[in-house]
Amino acid sequence: MNNKIYFTPGPSELYPTVAAHLATAMANKVGSISHRSQQFKDIYAHAVTGLRQLLQLPDNWDILFVASANEVWERAIQNNVERKSFHLVNGSFSKRFYEISLELGRQATKHEVAFGEGFSIDDLDIPASTELMAVVQNETSSGVSTPVTEINKLRTKLNPETLIYVDAVSSTPYPNFDYNQIDSVYFSVQKGMGLPAGLGIWLVNGRCVAKAENLKNKGLSLGSYHSIPALLSKARAFQNPETPNVLAIYLLGKVVEEMNHHGIATIRQETETKAKLIYDYLATSQTFSAAVTNPAQQSQTTIIANTKISSAEVIKKLAPFDMVVGSGYGSYKDTQIRIANFPAHSVAQVQALVYKLQELFN
Amino acid sequence: MNNKIYFTPGPSELYPTVAAHLATAMANKVGSISHRSQQFKDIYAHAVTGLRQLLQLPDNWDILFVASANEVWERAIQNNVERKSFHLVNGSFSKRFYEISLELGRQATKHEVAFGEGFSIDDLDIPASTELMAVVQNETSSGVSTPVTEINKLRTKLNPETLIYVDAVSSTPYPNFDYNQIDSVYFSVQKGMGLPAGLGIWLVNGRCVAKAENLKNKGLSLGSYHSIPALLSKARAFQNPETPNVLAIYLLGKVVEEMNHHGIATIRQETETKAKLIYDYLATSQTFSAAVTNPAQQSQTTIIANTKISSAEVIKKLAPFDMVVGSGYGSYKDTQIRIANFPAHSVAQVQALVYKLQELFN
Repeated sequence: MNNKIYFTPGPSELYPTVAAHLATAMANKVGSISHRSQQFKDIYAHAVTGLRQLLQLPDNWDILFVASANEVWERAIQNNVERKSFHLVNGSFSKRFYEISLELGRQATKHEVAFGEGFSIDDLDIPASTELMAVVQNETSSGVSTPVTEINKLRTKLNPETLIYVDAVSSTPYPNFDYNQIDSVYFSVQKGMGLPAGLGIWLVNGRCVAKAENLKNKGLSLGSYHSIPALLSKARAFQNPETPNVLAIYLLGKVVEEMNHHGIATIRQETETKAKLIYDYLATSQTFSAAVTNPAQQSQTTIIANTKISSAEVIKKLAPFDMVVGSGYGSYKDTQIRIANFPAHSVAQVQALVYKLQELFN
Repeated sequence: MNNKIYFTPGPSELYPTVAAHLATAMANKVGSISHRSQQFKDIYAHAVTGLRQLLQLPDNWDILFVASANEVWERAIQNNVERKSFHLVNGSFSKRFYEISLELGRQATKHEVAFGEGFSIDDLDIPASTELMAVVQNETSSGVSTPVTEINKLRTKLNPETLIYVDAVSSTPYPNFDYNQIDSVYFSVQKGMGLPAGLGIWLVNGRCVAKAENLKNKGLSLGSYHSIPALLSKARAFQNPETPNVLAIYLLGKVVEEMNHHGIATIRQETETKAKLIYDYLATSQTFSAAVTNPAQQSQTTIIANTKISSAEVIKKLAPFDMVVGSGYGSYKDTQIRIANFPAHSVAQVQALVYKLQELFN
């Protein structure tokens, strides 16, 4: 039996009901049903209907299921970029999307700022030939957030044809997007959704679909079973082209139903309450300090702190109390810690973590 | 509570211990651990070590984890075909691999026989320029098997550079391959491995790896996070490039351990015993007859029968007895039934199914 609470930035703490839902799925033999059966289509429909409500997604957007957020990066480039993508880079994950575009033979360019810094959207100069513009709403590696109000300014800076892709991998369902100002949002389920890894979720509007059709009509390859047209033709019939991760889709539907019961407004409010507990502590701590100093750019869901003692030591000292935080990312492994603040983490758990950090490290 | 036994060709009956392993995984919070942690690497190593033993895989082969067998088709073409693939087609799945090669812009050619028929390897004329030759060991849609002894003749018919890809999606772990005569085998876990869907397994030898490196050195795109080099660099450190389906890898390790305890020789023997029970019944039935008439080509793991009454009627009459068989595939939906015979199906369960078919339909 493992009684730890995982404040790691993903995989992270599972939503408290996941184990019970998995047991029910096993009793009902959800792992054995056909992925073309009505029973499966009902499971799929339940998940997407719930997700639409939770994310307040307009009707002209579609929800596509792939295997990971990594896969979304690849499919986005294959389906929505003939030549040029442009990437705002301020950490490892925003950089990876840029690299994937290059690996797929596209002309990717980037505007890069130092790890831990954010962007001044007003000052950006984005090439008019950009087909896909990538912005990370919440950079998991550095804890820098791009406020939704800033993202909403992008459209006016761009060629009207440019598609705006928003990475909300480690923040969904927290950000309250204006879907009229963006074209795609993507995330994976093992972060804010509180689910086991193995499912990437790709939200696209009609402009992304039209662009894919346009490239297809030009005779370009969009990939195969997971092109937007292939995914869409099945998604609208509540299926996937391949046999998907059925259990993950089942769990998603169950957890989203509970999140909707709790209410997205409450989830957002609690997220801010918990984030404030952590940032207030960091502001007074002798050991830790917030890595992101501009309050408007401080992530509410993945909070990064510089640490005067090694992250390994912090993790080790918390272990007897069944609390797990993440080490820093990449070259910041030792000098930073990362604390996830997802809907699966209760206010009481975050309060207990803060008290314990205070007691152990001041 | 669902007490049905699923003889469907996949997703199918889960290995009997899966529910218990999932409960243990939840108690140990396997869904929350980092995919870069030692704990995860141990889970990964356990799965691949067990799979090596079960499949008697030589040391110069690698095991790669992707999301589905569909994904293997795409990655195989991207990584191992610059221009030309050649496909033996005798059903929907062998045809799909061919189509994916075309969708990825390659010059795919095929040798096609009627649905339900097999191949005479001796009579094949395969273009010398073929880079990848695709053969389905067990065609899930039609129930036609290509005997391993026939597959072993392929090498002598081919340019020494040609890579031989074997689809064992719905037969693994049954076929006893000679790995010196082939270059890649792939399968998904929701068939013979008795696991929930959401993991594709791609076995490659050094020739597949070298070919991918060769194409990369020519400046061609191999895809991105799931290219062979990207997968391999992580796989050899017991990880995946992306956060994979951790629970599926955990379950794979547990079930493979039990299959190894049971013994691959016993599993193969039991598979043949159960298949004989079914084929012997089909030979005497007034309602059903084996769809594949050449005994050497009759699948041991996905057994297809022509039916004089509609498959829907058969499925409906079996329902009160908690037995589920599959309908036919595609245009054979009504006129055929499909019966899976996987390691998760016990001899007693198959015997009970045969008795019930006999009693209900003669």
